[in-house]
Amino acid sequence: MVIIDLRGAIVKERAGGPSFSFTRKTPFDNLLPMRNIRLAMAQINPVVGDINGNAKKILSYAERARKAGAALVLFPELALTGYPPEDLLLKPGFIDDNLAALEALAERVRGVTAVVGFVDREAGLYNAAALVHKGEVAAVYHKMHLPNYGVFDEERYFRAGKAPLNFVLNGITFGLEICEDIWFPEGPARAQALAGAEVIVNINASPYHMGKPLIREELLRARSTDNTAIIAYNNTIGGQDELIFDGAGMVVNERGEVIARGKPFQEDLIITDLDADTVSAARRKKRVKAGKRGAPGVRTIDLGTIKAKSNPGLPKRKTLILGEKEEVLKALVLGTRDYLQKNGFRHAVIGLSGGIDSSLVACVAGLALGKENVTGVLMPSRYTSKESMEDAKLLARNIGMKTLTVPIEGPFKAYLDTMRDAFRGTRPNEAEENMQARIRGNILMALSNKFGWLVLTTGNKSEMSVGYATLYGDMAGGFAVIKDLPKTLVYKVSGKINELEGREVIPERVFTKVPTAELRPNQTDQDTLPPYDVLDKILKAYVEEDRSIEEIAALGFGRELVRKVGRMVDHREYKRRQAPPGIKITPRALGKDRRMPITNRYENGGR
Amino acid sequence: MVIIDLRGAIVKERAGGPSFSFTRKTPFDNLLPMRNIRLAMAQINPVVGDINGNAKKILSYAERARKAGAALVLFPELALTGYPPEDLLLKPGFIDDNLAALEALAERVRGVTAVVGFVDREAGLYNAAALVHKGEVAAVYHKMHLPNYGVFDEERYFRAGKAPLNFVLNGITFGLEICEDIWFPEGPARAQALAGAEVIVNINASPYHMGKPLIREELLRARSTDNTAIIAYNNTIGGQDELIFDGAGMVVNERGEVIARGKPFQEDLIITDLDADTVSAARRKKRVKAGKRGAPGVRTIDLGTIKAKSNPGLPKRKTLILGEKEEVLKALVLGTRDYLQKNGFRHAVIGLSGGIDSSLVACVAGLALGKENVTGVLMPSRYTSKESMEDAKLLARNIGMKTLTVPIEGPFKAYLDTMRDAFRGTRPNEAEENMQARIRGNILMALSNKFGWLVLTTGNKSEMSVGYATLYGDMAGGFAVIKDLPKTLVYKVSGKINELEGREVIPERVFTKVPTAELRPNQTDQDTLPPYDVLDKILKAYVEEDRSIEEIAALGFGRELVRKVGRMVDHREYKRRQAPPGIKITPRALGKDRRMPITNRYENGGR
Repeated sequence: MVIIDLRGAIVKERAGGPSFSFTRKTPFDNLLPMRNIRLAMAQINPVVGDINGNAKKILSYAERARKAGAALVLFPELALTGYPPEDLLLKPGFIDDNLAALEALAERVRGVTAVVGFVDREAGLYNAAALVHKGEVAAVYHKMHLPNYGVFDEERYFRAGKAPLNFVLNGITFGLEICEDIWFPEGPARAQALAGAEVIVNINASPYHMGKPLIREELLRARSTDNTAIIAYNNTIGGQDELIFDGAGMVVNERGEVIARGKPFQEDLIITDLDADTVSAARRKKRVKAGKRGAPGVRTIDLGTIKAKSNPGLPKRKTLILGEKEEVLKALVLGTRDYLQKNGFRHAVIGLSGGIDSSLVACVAGLALGKENVTGVLMPSRYTSKESMEDAKLLARNIGMKTLTVPIEGPFKAYLDTMRDAFRGTRPNEAEENMQARIRGNILMALSNKFGWLVLTTGNKSEMSVGYATLYGDMAGGFAVIKDLPKTLVYKVSGKINELEGREVIPERVFTKVPTAELRPNQTDQDTLPPYDVLDKILKAYVEEDRSIEEIAALGFGRELVRKVGRMVDHREYKRRQAPPGIKITPRALGKDRRMPITNRYENGGR
Repeated sequence: MVIIDLRGAIVKERAGGPSFSFTRKTPFDNLLPMRNIRLAMAQINPVVGDINGNAKKILSYAERARKAGAALVLFPELALTGYPPEDLLLKPGFIDDNLAALEALAERVRGVTAVVGFVDREAGLYNAAALVHKGEVAAVYHKMHLPNYGVFDEERYFRAGKAPLNFVLNGITFGLEICEDIWFPEGPARAQALAGAEVIVNINASPYHMGKPLIREELLRARSTDNTAIIAYNNTIGGQDELIFDGAGMVVNERGEVIARGKPFQEDLIITDLDADTVSAARRKKRVKAGKRGAPGVRTIDLGTIKAKSNPGLPKRKTLILGEKEEVLKALVLGTRDYLQKNGFRHAVIGLSGGIDSSLVACVAGLALGKENVTGVLMPSRYTSKESMEDAKLLARNIGMKTLTVPIEGPFKAYLDTMRDAFRGTRPNEAEENMQARIRGNILMALSNKFGWLVLTTGNKSEMSVGYATLYGDMAGGFAVIKDLPKTLVYKVSGKINELEGREVIPERVFTKVPTAELRPNQTDQDTLPPYDVLDKILKAYVEEDRSIEEIAALGFGRELVRKVGRMVDHREYKRRQAPPGIKITPRALGKDRRMPITNRYENGGR
């Protein structure tokens, strides 16, 4: 064990248990210089696999931080590889390349100490943070708590680190952590604080879900006051397949007050001046008793001093906290933009039906890519109403996007004709309905293949959950923008767009008319499904909360209805398995967040 | 620690380290009765989620085992829930139901002791084995080694057990293990043997891949001779989504000889008479030194005696070891049959092109479902050759399956017509090619929707790896039978079918003609791809072995070619993500076995 005084200086080292108290005082308290440090948090958007590109970005942000007078700059978890690299981690060459890039980076970062997330390799792999200092990697921390639930598979790849790491820089003691580490009350921060850390720096790739920024803030407030420590929490931003990283980094002082905030859903360089004396003063005041808490062996490394560039000015930061609907909208826009850009697409194509789902997706695409980079396709059939076409055209005009009209009657007739023998003696059923949806899917894919556009699908979470969608039809496309938005949330976020724009971008009638797939005469969604406000409540309980049929019925829904919905969810897993990826918005999305067997005879307590 | 003598009787219990030697002798060796026991291994096919159905099957096999005179019967890992239950495990009601079923089962199993795999719950969940004995659950073992790689996610759900468990039955000491436990030389078997176990019983849900039965046999030989113990290894059989469990259980004696084998790819009840005296004799002879090995605390429970039904007859078992090609064929047939049956389908539909892939899938479907339950659909286009139609028809006739002919020219013309404006000024490209494949996909799906048939897709692993397939076209369907067979293996297994049938089921010309997608005039696969024997070698190194471009080039392939293939693999991840599930055949399949990001700029050392 390393014993450090409240100034961060190593007093002595010894093995074994707790022997340190926050209440110890020195007679020199008033004689020591003020212990301030300027911290920069680089909230950057790496691309998975683009090790050299990410390294370049890290170097450029490190240089910006140095110029701004920072002595220490934090980069996100696995900033060098992007997060999550998934099975790229199984390629030995990938690990080699990331290690080589770290070495090269360490030689080039000067005048500022940097914390850089990378993959370390000893006997196994570690999710690691490097302390890049004066031209070399001065120390490495291995993440101790590996998430292996929800969207996370870290135990598939990494071993858990064994010991917390503190470092002393400019006379201040920092505890270094990675993401999940901070979620445990008895995690490394506790031991680090007991071993003298005044500032906990935690680097993250923490995925977004609705309301998560607030959950994190509560957590950080609790953790900072528990440990009487400043917490600097830096997060990735950007979209990576199903995941959005929302940034929204925070610095929370030892009283649990947020003293700096990163921009949500944007790259940012968050610069804060930290005063470690307030931490030691608070600790003395609290008179935390010695010997009451355990302090397992914490490694400490003294980095000496970084003489930061003199730059007294610190620009005022505008704190931006988003409401729920705007937060979701920004997540959709970022997720869509990054999926296209990072995969080399510039232009999106969307089938416009005149309904609320495709209207919202078109708005998101316009915001993400620019209206000139989105094409709407109207594909009327014999069952399409005049109102639908009007609403689709008006929406496109309001957005300012191009449209194409490609009627499906010709191919539909040709299919019916070529299938006549095979279908002889049968009655029309969903075969003919789905045929129309699949013709539309084919038309959009043909445009994609012809012009290199990416097809955005428009299905919402309510539909995807119960399988109210046509495989290879309206489900055909590269990215499912609103796949994780329940229909009721689709309406809310759509309303928010009109509110933010201060005009009716999405026509009023789109909000008020009855939802329909228009695949047969006079069809409405509610022929097959309960009203969406009921359906969405049942689905939340069943899909997101794992409640049984009986439990959900007890919430006040008809038992038969709940059972029917549950069966629809279970029996349509095969459709979801072939759906394109989409943006995780809820605590449990329908992607790698929820891994249900297709072959599944479980009746969910509803037998 | 529990000290047990070589007869399996508990001598005394004490805490702490190793103090037991295999060499200890008693003066009564020659006076004791022979210690024989009849063991039954029930190699059953559970259905995931069908807890009651599985319990019923377990009960019926237990009764068969009792009638055959067995004192002990083994069921597979998680036999009660099916394996893998995936996120069903997150539903509290699912765990409740499985616990209730175990209790009910324990009351009903009589006259035989049973080892039953189930999910146990304490503070967390455990992959567990119950010792069902005389009307109750006498003890529970928690799996100690949890696989979390490849297709496995056990750390997502389970905690690891802390202690090995031995049990004494009819004077013989058994060590109880689950699956992964046996793969570690220093796993529980070592401690169990040192604590007196003469027979290690290991229950499994061990997924098949090509050659795995032999790998397991080598493992069991090593483990049994290492520990001078009999090993009874019981495995699940059946298909579950992407996975096949091949059964092929084994009993290996203390000299490493296989003394009984379960049928491969079939349910079976494997009955063996075990002689524990040969184990103790072998141990005395080996004179294993005391104190040389550690024996961590092993729990031991004495179950007393089961008076087995007198039934001296033990039917002769025919040992069946399959060659590689036949093994793969049986895996395909079992996987296809179980996917359809367990999901409530009776009939499959397949697009027949006259090529080798669809020919093999049609044969597999015929073997799995019966020829009367398979329909082949011929969908000629303007580019389809006379030979293709002849070969498809001849194949169908040879199998004895029904066919439909649905030409695609009408819909194709209608698409070109309705797209005329949108495509004006462009040249034909893959848009028009894919359109044809998608028309075929739509026709098959329309037949599926109309008649309740399941569409089997026909893409092989070579195509799926490089994305030489049309999304929503030939990739459209419920189950991808040969998705994990490289093209070169497709030919081999197809040849094996003709050999086994003793006639030309698949027409000779199908083997010899040049592969083509027939989507434009005079097209062949080799316009776009290297020859399949070259491609398959590169793909194995790249996809299954994670080798870099440089390493593969060094094996004797052109660097540019390897780089091109690598890029095709990486850039087509989005297609594979929307592919139907298919049967895992190789050590690394293209499903949950390989989790690559879609958004991925890594260049694999080939920059």
